[in-house]
Amino acid sequence: MNRKPTFPALVVVAALGLALAAAGCGGAEPQTQITYPEGYRNWAHVKSMVIHDPAHPLYEAFGGIHHVYVNPRGAETLRRGSGTYPDGSVFVFDLLEANLDGGAYVEGDRKVLAMMVKNAGRYGSTGGWGFEAFAGGDPAQRVVVDAAKDCFNCHAPQQATDYVFSGWRK
Amino acid sequence: MNRKPTFPALVVVAALGLALAAAGCGGAEPQTQITYPEGYRNWAHVKSMVIHDPAHPLYEAFGGIHHVYVNPRGAETLRRGSGTYPDGSVFVFDLLEANLDGGAYVEGDRKVLAMMVKNAGRYGSTGGWGFEAFAGGDPAQRVVVDAAKDCFNCHAPQQATDYVFSGWRK
Repeated sequence: MNRKPTFPALVVVAALGLALAAAGCGGAEPQTQITYPEGYRNWAHVKSMVIHDPAHPLYEAFGGIHHVYVNPRGAETLRRGSGTYPDGSVFVFDLLEANLDGGAYVEGDRKVLAMMVKNAGRYGSTGGWGFEAFAGGDPAQRVVVDAAKDCFNCHAPQQATDYVFSGWRK
Repeated sequence: MNRKPTFPALVVVAALGLALAAAGCGGAEPQTQITYPEGYRNWAHVKSMVIHDPAHPLYEAFGGIHHVYVNPRGAETLRRGSGTYPDGSVFVFDLLEANLDGGAYVEGDRKVLAMMVKNAGRYGSTGGWGFEAFAGGDPAQRVVVDAAKDCFNCHAPQQATDYVFSGWRK
């Protein structure tokens, strides 16, 4: 368990995705309308999790420590735990390396910053949410090629909570 | 690594502390002037860490996943990374159980909520900070008996950052 997490497959996919996008092969929702979430570090912190074991099914994509944040627009629905998020709600999934340090996992460099943005009209084919991710947290390094395939497929079973995995921890 | 963290020594100390306090043997700063930090879950999230290995020197007291939050009053100094925190600055150290779940550490029940509150005049003997902690996050279950011994001794070497361990992660 002393090895560092490998760089996630997501980012490998990202590099491929950028190449495809540059070639005009994306064919997905207009993700470029999603802007980098400036100021999200001041939003409410929803929850955190450390995926540390390479045997975990999400290790390749999300190995490390991740934090979930919600903007003020989405916070009320999250706290209520039911209902449909209003347009403009945003969640950020902030994935950092989880570095072993003498019997503890501590935060390392940012691996990827992912986000979902509610706009029921614009993103009807993906539950009303647009998805984007930024490799290394760099606003210039967009990751998502096909939001339905890359992101929404995993969220789809969460229809009861408007496709949001996280619950609010009091 | 599949066993749950033991209940921290801090809470054992707490039970003893409450007994001593009830007997009027505290002899410390007036910690009861520190009130439970209502609304801290909406403050800025500073950092997180998982202390998972029983061999870690802080495992007994702080085994689990902890999150640090700062109130708006203290956030500016923390972001600047230097200087003295203004009176009214508050940090919360929110310690939850870290439960193993298929190769990941996920958040469990709250073990303790600790806080430090800046008031240079009131808490001059402990670096200008008052310390308190609440077992299980219960406002009625105060933990700290002697802030100097229980809390400040560990913070004292951090004088260069006004006794704050955490740095701001961008």
